Amino acid sequence: MRWRLRGYNAASRLPAEQLAKGIAAYSSGNHAQAVALAARELGTSAVILMPEDTPDSKKEATAGYGAEIVTYDRYTGDRVAIGEALAADRGLALVPPYEHPHVIAGQGTAALELIEEAGELDALVVPVGGGGLIAGSATAAKALLPSVRVIGVEPEQGDDTKRSLEAGRRVSVPVPRTIADGQAADIPGELTFSVNRRLVDAVALVDDDQIREAMRFAFERMKIVLEPSGASALAALLAHRIGPVPGRVGVIVSGGNIGARRFSELIGAS
Amino acid sequence: MRWRLRGYNAASRLPAEQLAKGIAAYSSGNHAQAVALAARELGTSAVILMPEDTPDSKKEATAGYGAEIVTYDRYTGDRVAIGEALAADRGLALVPPYEHPHVIAGQGTAALELIEEAGELDALVVPVGGGGLIAGSATAAKALLPSVRVIGVEPEQGDDTKRSLEAGRRVSVPVPRTIADGQAADIPGELTFSVNRRLVDAVALVDDDQIREAMRFAFERMKIVLEPSGASALAALLAHRIGPVPGRVGVIVSGGNIGARRFSELIGAS
Repeated sequence: MRWRLRGYNAASRLPAEQLAKGIAAYSSGNHAQAVALAARELGTSAVILMPEDTPDSKKEATAGYGAEIVTYDRYTGDRVAIGEALAADRGLALVPPYEHPHVIAGQGTAALELIEEAGELDALVVPVGGGGLIAGSATAAKALLPSVRVIGVEPEQGDDTKRSLEAGRRVSVPVPRTIADGQAADIPGELTFSVNRRLVDAVALVDDDQIREAMRFAFERMKIVLEPSGASALAALLAHRIGPVPGRVGVIVSGGNIGARRFSELIGAS
Repeated sequence: MRWRLRGYNAASRLPAEQLAKGIAAYSSGNHAQAVALAARELGTSAVILMPEDTPDSKKEATAGYGAEIVTYDRYTGDRVAIGEALAADRGLALVPPYEHPHVIAGQGTAALELIEEAGELDALVVPVGGGGLIAGSATAAKALLPSVRVIGVEPEQGDDTKRSLEAGRRVSVPVPRTIADGQAADIPGELTFSVNRRLVDAVALVDDDQIREAMRFAFERMKIVLEPSGASALAALLAHRIGPVPGRVGVIVSGGNIGARRFSELIGAS
Protein backbone atom coordinates (compact mmCIF):
# COMPACT_ATOMS: atom_id res chain seq x y z
CA MET A 1 0.00 0.00 0.00
CA ARG A 2 2.47 2.56 -1.20
CA TRP A 3 -0.13 5.32 -1.28
CA ARG A 4 -0.10 5.37 2.49
CA LEU A 5 3.34 6.91 2.30
CA ARG A 6 1.76 10.18 1.35
CA GLY A 7 0.10 10.46 4.74
CA TYR A 8 2.68 8.37 6.54
CA ASN A 9 5.81 10.01 5.48
CA ALA A 10 5.60 13.16 7.56
CA ALA A 11 3.80 11.59 10.50
CA SER A 12 5.98 8.54 10.87
CA ARG A 13 9.15 10.59 11.10
CA LEU A 14 7.94 12.55 14.10
CA PRO A 15 9.80 11.83 17.36
CA ALA A 16 7.94 9.08 19.23
CA GLU A 17 7.05 11.27 22.21
CA GLN A 18 5.61 13.89 19.90
CA LEU A 19 3.71 11.28 17.90
CA ALA A 20 2.18 9.91 21.11
CA LYS A 21 0.61 13.30 21.87
CA GLY A 22 -1.23 13.36 18.56
CA ILE A 23 -1.17 15.07 15.18
CA ALA A 24 -3.02 18.11 13.87
CA ALA A 25 -3.64 19.26 10.30
CA TYR A 26 -5.77 21.81 8.43
CA SER A 27 -7.37 20.54 5.24
CA SER A 28 -10.78 19.56 3.91
CA GLY A 29 -9.56 17.09 1.32
CA ASN A 30 -6.92 14.48 0.67
CA HIS A 31 -4.55 15.74 3.35
CA ALA A 32 -7.24 15.57 6.07
CA GLN A 33 -7.98 11.95 5.26
CA ALA A 34 -4.32 11.01 4.84
CA VAL A 35 -3.35 12.42 8.24
CA ALA A 36 -6.38 10.85 9.92
CA LEU A 37 -5.52 7.44 8.45
CA ALA A 38 -1.81 7.80 9.27
CA ALA A 39 -2.64 8.63 12.90
CA ARG A 40 -4.87 5.59 13.21
CA GLU A 41 -2.29 3.29 11.66
CA LEU A 42 0.46 4.73 13.84
CA GLY A 43 -1.66 4.28 16.96
CA THR A 44 -2.11 7.94 17.84
CA SER A 45 -4.85 10.55 17.57
CA ALA A 46 -5.53 13.25 14.97
CA VAL A 47 -7.35 16.58 15.15
CA ILE A 48 -8.31 18.04 11.77
CA LEU A 49 -9.28 21.68 11.26
CA MET A 50 -11.90 22.02 8.52
CA PRO A 51 -14.05 24.87 7.22
CA GLU A 52 -17.55 24.83 8.74
CA ASP A 53 -19.12 24.44 5.30
CA THR A 54 -17.07 21.38 4.34
CA PRO A 55 -19.45 18.86 2.71
CA ASP A 56 -20.68 16.15 5.08
CA SER A 57 -19.17 13.44 2.88
CA LYS A 58 -15.68 14.80 3.52
CA LYS A 59 -16.27 15.21 7.23
CA GLU A 60 -17.63 11.68 7.48
CA ALA A 61 -14.71 10.24 5.53
CA THR A 62 -12.23 11.94 7.85
CA ALA A 63 -14.15 11.09 11.02
CA GLY A 64 -14.44 7.53 9.70
CA TYR A 65 -10.67 7.20 10.08
CA GLY A 66 -11.05 8.16 13.74
CA ALA A 67 -10.05 11.83 13.64
CA GLU A 68 -11.60 14.57 15.75
CA ILE A 69 -12.87 17.41 13.56
CA VAL A 70 -12.73 21.05 14.59
CA THR A 71 -14.39 23.59 12.31
CA TYR A 72 -13.79 27.27 11.57
CA ASP A 73 -15.39 29.95 9.43
CA ARG A 74 -13.43 30.14 6.21
CA TYR A 75 -14.55 33.69 5.49
CA THR A 76 -13.34 35.20 8.74
CA GLY A 77 -10.73 32.74 10.02
CA ASP A 78 -7.11 32.14 9.00
CA ARG A 79 -6.58 28.39 8.94
CA VAL A 80 -2.84 28.55 9.45
CA ALA A 81 -3.14 30.75 12.54
CA ILE A 82 -6.03 28.71 13.99
CA GLY A 83 -4.25 25.45 13.21
CA GLU A 84 -1.05 26.59 14.87
CA ALA A 85 -2.89 27.83 17.94
CA LEU A 86 -4.83 24.59 18.20
CA ALA A 87 -1.68 22.50 17.90
CA ALA A 88 0.20 24.62 20.47
CA ASP A 89 -2.74 24.54 22.86
CA ARG A 90 -3.02 20.79 22.85
CA GLY A 91 0.64 19.94 22.34
CA LEU A 92 -0.01 18.36 18.93
CA ALA A 93 2.43 18.09 16.04
CA LEU A 94 1.10 20.10 13.10
CA VAL A 95 1.54 18.42 9.70
CA PRO A 96 1.30 21.14 7.02
CA PRO A 97 -0.37 20.31 3.69
CA TYR A 98 2.63 21.07 1.46
CA GLU A 99 5.38 23.26 2.97
CA HIS A 100 7.40 20.43 4.49
CA PRO A 101 10.10 18.17 2.97
CA HIS A 102 8.54 14.96 4.27
CA VAL A 103 5.13 15.89 2.92
CA ILE A 104 6.65 16.72 -0.46
CA ALA A 105 8.58 13.45 -0.47
CA GLY A 106 5.38 11.56 0.36
CA GLN A 107 3.48 13.29 -2.43
CA GLY A 108 6.27 12.33 -4.82
CA THR A 109 5.32 8.69 -4.42
CA ALA A 110 2.43 9.45 -6.81
CA ALA A 111 4.93 9.88 -9.65
CA LEU A 112 7.09 7.03 -8.37
CA GLU A 113 4.19 4.59 -8.49
CA LEU A 114 2.99 5.88 -11.85
CA ILE A 115 6.39 5.38 -13.47
CA GLU A 116 6.93 2.00 -11.82
CA GLU A 117 3.63 0.84 -13.26
CA ALA A 118 3.55 2.63 -16.61
CA GLY A 119 7.26 2.62 -17.46
CA GLU A 120 9.13 5.21 -19.51
CA LEU A 121 7.39 8.58 -20.00
CA ASP A 122 8.29 11.55 -22.15
CA ALA A 123 6.19 13.99 -20.15
CA LEU A 124 4.39 14.12 -16.82
CA VAL A 125 1.46 16.47 -16.28
CA VAL A 126 0.65 17.40 -12.67
CA PRO A 127 -1.91 19.72 -10.99
CA VAL A 128 -0.41 22.66 -9.08
CA GLY A 129 -1.98 24.22 -5.98
CA GLY A 130 0.49 24.95 -3.19
CA GLY A 131 3.07 23.14 -5.29
CA GLY A 132 3.82 20.15 -3.06
CA LEU A 133 2.49 17.43 -5.33
CA ILE A 134 4.44 18.69 -8.34
CA ALA A 135 7.61 19.35 -6.30
CA GLY A 136 7.62 15.75 -5.05
CA SER A 137 6.52 14.31 -8.38
CA ALA A 138 9.14 16.24 -10.35
CA THR A 139 11.86 15.14 -7.91
CA ALA A 140 10.88 11.47 -8.24
CA ALA A 141 10.25 11.60 -11.99
CA LYS A 142 13.52 13.33 -12.90
CA ALA A 143 15.51 10.98 -10.66
CA LEU A 144 14.07 8.00 -12.56
CA LEU A 145 13.81 9.58 -16.00
CA PRO A 146 16.24 12.49 -16.32
CA SER A 147 14.86 13.66 -19.68
CA VAL A 148 11.17 13.64 -18.72
CA ARG A 149 9.39 16.95 -19.23
CA VAL A 150 7.39 17.99 -16.14
CA ILE A 151 4.41 20.22 -16.88
CA GLY A 152 2.31 21.80 -14.15
CA VAL A 153 -1.33 22.80 -14.59
CA GLU A 154 -3.03 25.70 -12.83
CA PRO A 155 -6.50 27.23 -13.15
CA GLU A 156 -6.37 30.39 -15.31
CA GLN A 157 -7.31 32.59 -12.37
CA GLY A 158 -4.74 31.00 -10.06
CA ASP A 159 -1.61 31.22 -12.16
CA ASP A 160 0.69 32.23 -9.31
CA THR A 161 3.22 29.46 -9.98
CA LYS A 162 3.33 30.19 -13.73
CA ARG A 163 3.91 33.89 -13.06
CA SER A 164 6.45 33.12 -10.36
CA LEU A 165 8.47 30.81 -12.59
CA GLU A 166 8.47 33.46 -15.33
CA ALA A 167 9.53 36.15 -12.87
CA GLY A 168 12.12 33.95 -11.18
CA ARG A 169 10.65 34.83 -7.76
CA ARG A 170 7.45 34.17 -5.80
CA VAL A 171 4.64 36.35 -7.14
CA SER A 172 1.15 36.55 -5.66
CA VAL A 173 -2.15 36.86 -7.56
CA PRO A 174 -5.61 37.93 -6.30
CA VAL A 175 -7.40 35.07 -4.50
CA PRO A 176 -8.50 32.93 -7.47
CA ARG A 177 -12.16 32.34 -8.30
CA THR A 178 -12.29 28.84 -9.72
CA ILE A 179 -14.18 25.60 -9.22
CA ALA A 180 -10.79 24.01 -8.50
CA ASP A 181 -10.84 24.89 -4.79
CA GLY A 182 -7.82 22.68 -4.07
CA GLN A 183 -5.80 24.85 -6.45
CA ALA A 184 -6.93 28.21 -5.13
CA ALA A 185 -3.47 29.14 -3.85
CA ASP A 186 -2.53 32.80 -4.38
CA ILE A 187 1.24 32.42 -3.94
CA PRO A 188 3.62 29.44 -4.23
CA GLY A 189 5.07 27.99 -1.04
CA GLU A 190 8.64 29.05 -0.28
CA LEU A 191 9.94 25.52 -0.08
CA THR A 192 7.86 24.15 -2.97
CA PHE A 193 8.89 27.06 -5.21
CA SER A 194 12.57 26.47 -4.48
CA VAL A 195 12.13 22.92 -5.84
CA ASN A 196 9.77 23.80 -8.69
CA ARG A 197 11.93 26.59 -10.13
CA ARG A 198 14.63 23.98 -10.71
CA LEU A 199 12.51 21.05 -11.91
CA VAL A 200 9.27 22.25 -13.56
CA ASP A 201 9.63 22.82 -17.31
CA ALA A 202 6.35 24.61 -18.04
CA VAL A 203 2.96 25.48 -16.56
CA ALA A 204 -0.25 25.20 -18.60
CA LEU A 205 -3.53 26.94 -17.70
CA VAL A 206 -7.07 25.59 -17.91
CA ASP A 207 -10.44 27.29 -17.44
CA ASP A 208 -13.39 25.97 -15.44
CA ASP A 209 -15.25 24.67 -18.51
CA GLN A 210 -12.24 22.61 -19.55
CA ILE A 211 -12.08 21.17 -16.04
CA ARG A 212 -15.80 20.30 -16.15
CA GLU A 213 -15.32 18.58 -19.49
CA ALA A 214 -12.47 16.47 -18.07
CA MET A 215 -14.58 15.53 -15.03
CA ARG A 216 -17.36 14.38 -17.36
CA PHE A 217 -14.90 12.44 -19.55
CA ALA A 218 -13.38 10.69 -16.53
CA PHE A 219 -16.85 9.86 -15.21
CA GLU A 220 -18.35 8.52 -18.42
CA ARG A 221 -15.39 6.93 -20.16
CA MET A 222 -12.97 6.03 -17.35
CA LYS A 223 -15.56 5.47 -14.58
CA ILE A 224 -13.44 7.56 -12.24
CA VAL A 225 -14.78 10.31 -9.95
CA LEU A 226 -12.60 13.42 -9.96
CA GLU A 227 -13.04 16.69 -8.11
CA PRO A 228 -12.16 19.82 -10.11
CA SER A 229 -8.63 20.17 -8.71
CA GLY A 230 -8.02 16.48 -9.36
CA ALA A 231 -9.10 16.80 -13.00
CA SER A 232 -7.10 19.84 -14.08
CA ALA A 233 -4.08 17.96 -15.46
CA LEU A 234 -6.37 15.71 -17.49
CA ALA A 235 -8.24 18.82 -18.65
CA ALA A 236 -5.04 20.38 -19.94
CA LEU A 237 -4.29 17.28 -21.97
CA LEU A 238 -7.83 16.90 -23.38
CA ALA A 239 -8.10 20.60 -24.23
CA HIS A 240 -4.69 20.63 -25.96
CA ARG A 241 -3.31 23.17 -23.53
CA ILE A 242 0.05 21.47 -23.12
CA GLY A 243 1.21 21.91 -26.70
CA PRO A 244 2.16 19.06 -29.03
CA VAL A 245 2.13 15.81 -27.06
CA PRO A 246 5.72 14.56 -27.02
CA GLY A 247 5.33 10.75 -27.04
CA ARG A 248 4.12 9.00 -23.89
CA VAL A 249 2.45 11.32 -21.42
CA GLY A 250 1.67 10.51 -17.79
CA VAL A 251 -1.12 12.45 -16.10
CA ILE A 252 -1.63 12.63 -12.34
CA VAL A 253 -5.28 12.80 -11.33
CA SER A 254 -5.15 13.78 -7.73
CA GLY A 255 -8.46 13.91 -5.93
CA GLY A 256 -12.08 12.79 -5.89
CA ASN A 257 -13.34 14.47 -2.74
CA ILE A 258 -16.70 15.52 -4.07
CA GLY A 259 -20.27 14.59 -3.23
CA ALA A 260 -22.62 13.33 -5.89
CA ARG A 261 -24.85 16.42 -5.71
CA ARG A 262 -22.02 18.89 -6.11
CA PHE A 263 -20.58 16.77 -8.91
CA SER A 264 -23.77 16.86 -10.94
CA GLU A 265 -24.21 20.60 -10.35
CA LEU A 266 -20.69 21.24 -11.59
CA ILE A 267 -20.89 19.29 -14.78
CA GLY A 268 -24.32 20.70 -15.57
CA ALA A 269 -26.10 17.39 -15.36
CA SER A 270 -28.99 18.51 -13.20
CA MET B 1 -4.58 -6.18 -21.35
CA ARG B 2 -6.32 -9.27 -20.13
CA TRP B 3 -9.72 -7.55 -19.99
CA ARG B 4 -9.83 -7.59 -23.75
CA LEU B 5 -10.33 -11.32 -23.58
CA ARG B 6 -13.91 -10.73 -22.59
CA GLY B 7 -14.68 -9.20 -25.94
CA TYR B 8 -11.97 -11.03 -27.79
CA ASN B 9 -12.63 -14.53 -26.75
CA ALA B 10 -15.74 -15.23 -28.78
CA ALA B 11 -14.79 -13.04 -31.71
CA SER B 12 -11.24 -14.26 -32.15
CA ARG B 13 -12.31 -17.89 -32.39
CA LEU B 14 -14.56 -17.28 -35.35
CA PRO B 15 -13.37 -18.83 -38.64
CA ALA B 16 -11.30 -16.28 -40.53
CA GLU B 17 -13.67 -16.03 -43.48
CA GLN B 18 -16.58 -15.39 -41.12
CA LEU B 19 -14.60 -12.86 -39.16
CA ALA B 20 -13.75 -10.99 -42.35
CA LYS B 21 -17.45 -10.45 -43.07
CA GLY B 22 -17.99 -8.73 -39.74
CA ILE B 23 -19.60 -9.28 -36.36
CA ALA B 24 -23.02 -8.38 -35.00
CA ALA B 25 -24.28 -8.11 -31.42
CA TYR B 26 -27.28 -6.82 -29.51
CA SER B 27 -26.51 -4.92 -26.32
CA SER B 28 -26.51 -1.40 -24.99
CA GLY B 29 -23.78 -1.89 -22.41
CA ASN B 30 -20.50 -3.65 -21.82
CA HIS B 31 -21.07 -6.27 -24.51
CA ALA B 32 -21.70 -3.64 -27.20
CA GLN B 33 -18.45 -1.90 -26.43
CA ALA B 34 -16.48 -5.13 -26.04
CA VAL B 35 -17.60 -6.46 -29.43
CA ALA B 36 -16.98 -3.10 -31.10
CA LEU B 37 -13.45 -2.96 -29.68
CA ALA B 38 -12.75 -6.61 -30.51
CA ALA B 39 -13.82 -6.05 -34.13
CA ARG B 40 -11.57 -3.05 -34.48
CA GLU B 41 -8.60 -4.85 -32.95
CA LEU B 42 -9.20 -7.89 -35.14
CA GLY B 43 -9.41 -5.73 -38.24
CA THR B 44 -13.04 -6.33 -39.09
CA SER B 45 -16.35 -4.45 -38.75
CA ALA B 46 -19.09 -4.56 -36.12
CA VAL B 47 -22.80 -3.79 -36.26
CA ILE B 48 -24.44 -3.29 -32.86
CA LEU B 49 -28.20 -3.40 -32.33
CA MET B 50 -29.25 -0.99 -29.58
CA PRO B 51 -32.57 0.26 -28.23
CA GLU B 52 -33.55 3.63 -29.75
CA ASP B 53 -33.60 5.22 -26.31
CA THR B 54 -30.07 4.15 -25.38
CA PRO B 55 -28.31 7.13 -23.76
CA ASP B 56 -26.09 9.07 -26.15
CA SER B 57 -23.04 8.41 -23.99
CA LYS B 58 -23.35 4.67 -24.61
CA LYS B 59 -23.97 5.14 -28.33
CA GLU B 60 -20.97 7.44 -28.59
CA ALA B 61 -18.71 5.06 -26.67
CA THR B 62 -19.67 2.19 -28.99
CA ALA B 63 -19.44 4.27 -32.15
CA GLY B 64 -16.10 5.56 -30.87
CA TYR B 65 -14.70 2.06 -31.28
CA GLY B 66 -15.75 2.15 -34.93
CA ALA B 67 -18.99 0.16 -34.79
CA GLU B 68 -22.10 0.85 -36.87
CA ILE B 69 -25.15 1.28 -34.62
CA VAL B 70 -28.62 0.09 -35.65
CA THR B 71 -31.49 0.97 -33.33
CA TYR B 72 -34.84 -0.68 -32.58
CA ASP B 73 -37.86 0.11 -30.42
CA ARG B 74 -37.45 -1.84 -27.22
CA TYR B 75 -41.15 -1.77 -26.45
CA THR B 76 -42.30 -3.36 -29.69
CA GLY B 77 -39.21 -5.16 -31.02
CA ASP B 78 -37.60 -8.47 -30.03
CA ARG B 79 -33.86 -7.88 -29.97
CA VAL B 80 -32.94 -11.53 -30.51
CA ALA B 81 -35.15 -11.86 -33.60
CA ILE B 82 -34.05 -8.51 -35.02
CA GLY B 83 -30.40 -9.28 -34.29
CA GLU B 84 -30.58 -12.67 -35.97
CA ALA B 85 -32.34 -11.25 -39.02
CA LEU B 86 -29.78 -8.45 -39.29
CA ALA B 87 -26.87 -10.89 -39.03
CA ALA B 88 -28.39 -13.30 -41.58
CA ASP B 89 -29.17 -10.45 -43.95
CA ARG B 90 -25.65 -9.08 -43.98
CA GLY B 91 -23.79 -12.37 -43.48
CA LEU B 92 -22.44 -11.33 -40.09
CA ALA B 93 -21.45 -13.59 -37.19
CA LEU B 94 -23.75 -12.88 -34.23
CA VAL B 95 -21.97 -12.85 -30.86
CA PRO B 96 -24.62 -13.43 -28.17
CA PRO B 97 -24.27 -11.59 -24.81
CA TYR B 98 -24.10 -14.69 -22.60
CA GLU B 99 -25.42 -17.93 -24.10
CA HIS B 100 -22.13 -19.06 -25.66
CA PRO B 101 -19.20 -21.00 -24.18
CA HIS B 102 -16.57 -18.60 -25.51
CA VAL B 103 -18.44 -15.59 -24.12
CA ILE B 104 -18.76 -17.30 -20.73
CA ALA B 105 -15.06 -18.19 -20.77
CA GLY B 106 -14.19 -14.61 -21.62
CA GLN B 107 -16.37 -13.28 -18.78
CA GLY B 108 -14.64 -15.69 -16.42
CA THR B 109 -11.41 -13.74 -16.86
CA ALA B 110 -12.94 -11.19 -14.45
CA ALA B 111 -12.62 -13.71 -11.60
CA LEU B 112 -9.29 -14.97 -12.92
CA GLU B 113 -7.77 -11.50 -12.81
CA LEU B 114 -9.31 -10.73 -9.43
CA ILE B 115 -7.83 -13.85 -7.85
CA GLU B 116 -4.46 -13.40 -9.54
CA GLU B 117 -4.30 -9.90 -8.10
CA ALA B 118 -5.98 -10.34 -4.71
CA GLY B 119 -4.91 -13.90 -3.89
CA GLU B 120 -6.82 -16.46 -1.84
CA LEU B 121 -10.54 -15.75 -1.31
CA ASP B 122 -13.11 -17.47 0.88
CA ALA B 123 -16.09 -16.13 -1.06
CA LEU B 124 -16.74 -14.44 -4.39
CA VAL B 125 -19.85 -12.29 -4.90
CA VAL B 126 -21.00 -11.78 -8.50
CA PRO B 127 -23.96 -9.98 -10.13
CA VAL B 128 -26.38 -12.25 -12.03
CA GLY B 129 -28.36 -11.19 -15.11
CA GLY B 130 -28.39 -13.76 -17.89
CA GLY B 131 -25.89 -15.71 -15.83
CA GLY B 132 -22.84 -15.57 -18.09
CA LEU B 133 -20.57 -13.53 -15.84
CA ILE B 134 -21.19 -15.76 -12.84
CA ALA B 135 -20.95 -18.98 -14.88
CA GLY B 136 -17.52 -17.96 -16.17
CA SER B 137 -16.41 -16.50 -12.85
CA ALA B 138 -17.50 -19.58 -10.87
CA THR B 139 -15.69 -21.84 -13.34
CA ALA B 140 -12.46 -19.88 -13.06
CA ALA B 141 -12.71 -19.33 -9.28
CA LYS B 142 -13.42 -22.94 -8.40
CA ALA B 143 -10.65 -24.17 -10.68
CA LEU B 144 -8.17 -21.97 -8.80
CA LEU B 145 -9.72 -22.16 -5.31
CA PRO B 146 -11.81 -25.35 -5.00
CA SER B 147 -13.30 -24.38 -1.62
CA VAL B 148 -14.32 -20.82 -2.56
CA ARG B 149 -18.01 -20.04 -1.99
CA VAL B 150 -19.62 -18.41 -5.06
CA ILE B 151 -22.60 -16.18 -4.27
CA GLY B 152 -24.75 -14.63 -6.98
CA VAL B 153 -26.73 -11.42 -6.51
CA GLU B 154 -30.01 -10.62 -8.25
CA PRO B 155 -32.46 -7.72 -7.88
CA GLU B 156 -35.41 -8.76 -5.69
CA GLN B 157 -37.84 -8.48 -8.60
CA GLY B 158 -35.61 -10.47 -10.95
CA ASP B 159 -34.91 -13.54 -8.86
CA ASP B 160 -35.25 -16.04 -11.72
CA THR B 161 -31.86 -17.67 -11.08
CA LYS B 162 -32.49 -18.00 -7.34
CA ARG B 163 -35.88 -19.60 -7.98
CA SER B 164 -34.42 -21.81 -10.70
CA LEU B 165 -31.61 -23.07 -8.50
CA GLU B 166 -34.12 -23.86 -5.74
CA ALA B 167 -36.43 -25.64 -8.19
CA GLY B 168 -33.59 -27.48 -9.92
CA ARG B 169 -34.89 -26.31 -13.32
CA ARG B 170 -35.18 -23.03 -15.26
CA VAL B 171 -38.08 -20.99 -13.89
CA SER B 172 -39.27 -17.69 -15.34
CA VAL B 173 -40.50 -14.63 -13.44
CA PRO B 174 -42.51 -11.61 -14.64
CA VAL B 175 -40.32 -9.07 -16.46
CA PRO B 176 -38.54 -7.42 -13.49
CA ARG B 177 -39.02 -3.75 -12.65
CA THR B 178 -35.70 -2.64 -11.26
CA ILE B 179 -33.15 0.11 -11.76
CA ALA B 180 -30.65 -2.69 -12.52
CA ASP B 181 -31.54 -2.89 -16.21
CA GLY B 182 -28.57 -5.13 -16.99
CA GLN B 183 -30.03 -7.71 -14.62
CA ALA B 184 -33.60 -7.57 -15.89
CA ALA B 185 -33.51 -11.15 -17.19
CA ASP B 186 -36.75 -13.09 -16.63
CA ILE B 187 -35.33 -16.61 -17.09
CA PRO B 188 -31.78 -18.02 -16.85
CA GLY B 189 -30.01 -19.00 -20.06
CA GLU B 190 -30.00 -22.72 -20.82
CA LEU B 191 -26.26 -22.96 -21.06
CA THR B 192 -25.52 -20.59 -18.19
CA PHE B 193 -27.99 -22.40 -15.92
CA SER B 194 -26.37 -25.76 -16.66
CA VAL B 195 -23.10 -24.33 -15.34
CA ASN B 196 -24.56 -22.35 -12.46
CA ARG B 197 -26.61 -25.20 -11.01
CA ARG B 198 -23.32 -27.04 -10.48
CA LEU B 199 -21.13 -24.17 -9.30
CA VAL B 200 -23.17 -21.44 -7.61
CA ASP B 201 -23.59 -21.94 -3.86
CA ALA B 202 -26.23 -19.32 -3.09
CA VAL B 203 -28.03 -16.31 -4.53
CA ALA B 204 -28.68 -13.16 -2.48
CA LEU B 205 -31.28 -10.52 -3.35
CA VAL B 206 -31.00 -6.72 -3.14
CA ASP B 207 -33.59 -3.98 -3.56
CA ASP B 208 -33.21 -0.78 -5.55
CA ASP B 209 -32.47 1.35 -2.48
CA GLN B 210 -29.62 -0.93 -1.48
CA ILE B 211 -28.23 -0.66 -5.01
CA ARG B 212 -28.48 3.15 -4.87
CA GLU B 213 -26.65 3.17 -1.55
CA ALA B 214 -23.84 1.04 -3.02
CA MET B 215 -23.57 3.37 -6.05
CA ARG B 216 -23.24 6.34 -3.71
CA PHE B 217 -20.67 4.53 -1.56
CA ALA B 218 -18.58 3.58 -4.60
CA PHE B 219 -18.80 7.16 -5.90
CA GLU B 220 -17.93 8.97 -2.69
CA ARG B 221 -15.52 6.57 -0.99
CA MET B 222 -14.00 4.52 -3.82
CA LYS B 223 -14.22 7.19 -6.55
CA ILE B 224 -15.63 4.57 -8.92
CA VAL B 225 -18.66 5.06 -11.17
CA LEU B 226 -21.01 2.08 -11.16
CA GLU B 227 -24.29 1.59 -12.98
CA PRO B 228 -27.01 -0.18 -10.94
CA SER B 229 -26.34 -3.65 -12.36
CA GLY B 230 -22.65 -3.21 -11.76
CA ALA B 231 -23.21 -2.26 -8.11
CA SER B 232 -25.54 -5.05 -7.01
CA ALA B 233 -22.88 -7.42 -5.66
CA LEU B 234 -21.35 -4.58 -3.64
CA ALA B 235 -24.87 -3.69 -2.44
CA ALA B 236 -25.42 -7.21 -1.14
CA LEU B 237 -22.21 -7.03 0.84
CA LEU B 238 -22.84 -3.54 2.26
CA ALA B 239 -26.46 -4.35 3.18
CA HIS B 240 -25.48 -7.62 4.88
CA ARG B 241 -27.54 -9.66 2.45
CA ILE B 242 -24.96 -12.41 2.01
CA GLY B 243 -25.00 -13.65 5.59
CA PRO B 244 -21.97 -13.74 7.87
CA VAL B 245 -18.89 -12.78 5.87
CA PRO B 246 -16.65 -15.87 5.78
CA GLY B 247 -13.15 -14.42 5.78
CA ARG B 248 -11.84 -12.74 2.62
CA VAL B 249 -14.57 -11.79 0.20
CA GLY B 250 -14.07 -10.81 -3.45
CA VAL B 251 -16.74 -8.66 -5.10
CA ILE B 252 -17.10 -8.22 -8.85
CA VAL B 253 -18.31 -4.75 -9.84
CA SER B 254 -19.25 -5.17 -13.43
CA GLY B 255 -20.31 -2.02 -15.21
CA GLY B 256 -20.31 1.76 -15.22
CA ASN B 257 -22.31 2.52 -18.35
CA ILE B 258 -24.27 5.43 -17.01
CA GLY B 259 -24.41 9.13 -17.83
CA ALA B 260 -23.84 11.73 -15.14
CA ARG B 261 -27.44 12.99 -15.32
CA ARG B 262 -29.00 9.56 -14.90
CA PHE B 263 -26.55 8.78 -12.13
CA SER B 264 -27.53 11.80 -10.08
CA GLU B 265 -31.25 11.14 -10.65
CA LEU B 266 -30.83 7.58 -9.42
CA ILE B 267 -28.99 8.35 -6.25
CA GLY B 268 -31.32 11.20 -5.44
CA ALA B 269 -28.71 13.89 -5.68
CA SER B 270 -30.67 16.32 -7.79
